[in-house]
Amino acid sequence: MLRPVTLDLSASAADLTAQLVDIESVSGAEQRLADAIEVALRDLGPLQVERYGNVVLARTELGRLQRVVLAGHIDTVPVAGNLPSRISGGLLFGCGASDMKSGVAVQLKLAAEVAAPVMDVTYVFYDCEEVESKRNGLLRLARNNPASLAADFAVLLEPTGGVVEGGCQGTLRAEVGARGERAHSARAWMGRNAIHEAAGILDVLRGYHPRQPDVDGLTYSEGLNAVGIRGGVAGNVIPDECVVTVNYRFAPDRSADQAADHVREVFGGFDVAITDAVGGARPGLGNPAAASFAAAMGGTPRAKLGWTDVARFDSLGVPAVNYGPGDPTLAHARGEHVALTAVDDCAARMRAWLVG
Amino acid sequence: MLRPVTLDLSASAADLTAQLVDIESVSGAEQRLADAIEVALRDLGPLQVERYGNVVLARTELGRLQRVVLAGHIDTVPVAGNLPSRISGGLLFGCGASDMKSGVAVQLKLAAEVAAPVMDVTYVFYDCEEVESKRNGLLRLARNNPASLAADFAVLLEPTGGVVEGGCQGTLRAEVGARGERAHSARAWMGRNAIHEAAGILDVLRGYHPRQPDVDGLTYSEGLNAVGIRGGVAGNVIPDECVVTVNYRFAPDRSADQAADHVREVFGGFDVAITDAVGGARPGLGNPAAASFAAAMGGTPRAKLGWTDVARFDSLGVPAVNYGPGDPTLAHARGEHVALTAVDDCAARMRAWLVG
Repeated sequence: MLRPVTLDLSASAADLTAQLVDIESVSGAEQRLADAIEVALRDLGPLQVERYGNVVLARTELGRLQRVVLAGHIDTVPVAGNLPSRISGGLLFGCGASDMKSGVAVQLKLAAEVAAPVMDVTYVFYDCEEVESKRNGLLRLARNNPASLAADFAVLLEPTGGVVEGGCQGTLRAEVGARGERAHSARAWMGRNAIHEAAGILDVLRGYHPRQPDVDGLTYSEGLNAVGIRGGVAGNVIPDECVVTVNYRFAPDRSADQAADHVREVFGGFDVAITDAVGGARPGLGNPAAASFAAAMGGTPRAKLGWTDVARFDSLGVPAVNYGPGDPTLAHARGEHVALTAVDDCAARMRAWLVG
Repeated sequence: MLRPVTLDLSASAADLTAQLVDIESVSGAEQRLADAIEVALRDLGPLQVERYGNVVLARTELGRLQRVVLAGHIDTVPVAGNLPSRISGGLLFGCGASDMKSGVAVQLKLAAEVAAPVMDVTYVFYDCEEVESKRNGLLRLARNNPASLAADFAVLLEPTGGVVEGGCQGTLRAEVGARGERAHSARAWMGRNAIHEAAGILDVLRGYHPRQPDVDGLTYSEGLNAVGIRGGVAGNVIPDECVVTVNYRFAPDRSADQAADHVREVFGGFDVAITDAVGGARPGLGNPAAASFAAAMGGTPRAKLGWTDVARFDSLGVPAVNYGPGDPTLAHARGEHVALTAVDDCAARMRAWLVG
């Protein structure tokens, strides 16, 4: 067992990001980081801290007229040789630096420093955002304890490059399968090679033209991609099955059901099994709370392309936007990094907003 | 642990095949079957029995002028829902029925029934033939104890449909890789999808025209096939690597090195790593011992398409042919089966040859 680690919340938001990145927390293995966050928040004193599995909640109870949720996930995609973190030219490199330990650092800094916010605040730190949605910690909380997420407005600190991003795209995963017939590979003509047949699936993917629809004034960019492929029985057997896992990212003018129909149609002739589908959220910037937050942060709002839990808040009836210091174009890349000044800037803007 | 099983060598060769098929022995898990064979052979009395790992040897020591090796592998490819065995319309169905437990049954029947062969006989039962060659039990024996395989002639009881098959094709495995660049799958255009790139590898395979060369009067049929494919990092990541495992079966007019050069050339532009390559054997029917065996068995010899350990005997200087009751076109197929009469016929012909 790894020994417990402690977080120093008196460090700058940028330094705190490095501390968080260096506590590896690939989806499913967040306990050590969740423990560290829980202990650090309890040590602050005034916050009411709750723990559900690897979800940590901390709330002010100041009797304010309004309550805001500041939420972030603490897990990352698998490490790609990019830990421990390193700093170079004002940039912090490392798994999760952008998506989204820099956002989590901002949450923790606000929790530590803003003792008397103009709105009550519920800080939410949750697990398993980077994997299939049924494991998502925020989903679990929304189902088992929805009252804990009650609020007038929510900000999700996913990477947005310091720009308010409205709505989000939906995401769907499907297994698209090609079938064949087994035979000894010395007599391939006696069987039918399912991996060779799967070339037809890849041809569909290579020839696919993704949509770029305008939804409520923001432009979304769809995508249909293979994210996995598997096939093979043994080194001397013509395989009878090959399965391509595809991921369809779809704009919020399409429901999860419509997206599934589209994928089935695109891969007509192959076996298609939808394994995971969640709809997106239309941009909610017409909502007064969202509009005032956007005005306070500055800049021109844009469309959120990655699926985020704004869709979950949306379905709970809580208006929500994405806003965080990370760079969304670097998330999940080996060279993932975040600008140290961007983390401190984001913390400063949100502190000013909360202090009022 | 599974309890030991016993073999009844007084049963017919056909019945004995069913006994053998019902003792599951996928490559790497042959111990239970090797134990049963060793015990049955020791119980016979006159044979000198040796055991090396899961290889079992039994030899007559009658002081004959000539010695013949009768060899067979006791492992099978992975079970494909085709165990236990079943009999229908004179056919025995089950994993290994054709490749090559029917041949092993013939070996055991001859060991049990031919007490005074005209040549001394070395019966060899070995493991791990259906996997990468470095694990092959006969290769291990040839390296560690080559004297145990010394002989004037060898018959490998691989499935040939009761026809003498000369030589064998070589087999080569290579990993052919496509590379890409990781990115978040909501922004696929920031990366490059290695699985989509791998379509180029499959295109090469689909467009490949295999040779059918004539070698020493027999016609061989080559083949180049995918036998495995893998790729993918996580359900929301554009993958940066996809690897196709290909199997090239090549005629014995091409060496293993020439085959490797050919595969590298065919997949020019992709990463190619040769993981396993063994040359075949030219048809050895000009050899007097082989020619006289072929004449005794009858029929017209033909080319062996699958790689077999005749190539290993060839490299030890022992002329060898393939001859067995199984059907080579059914090996490794789900519906693998053998004709019961073919097993008994093969046993009878070889018994007559050994009795002289």
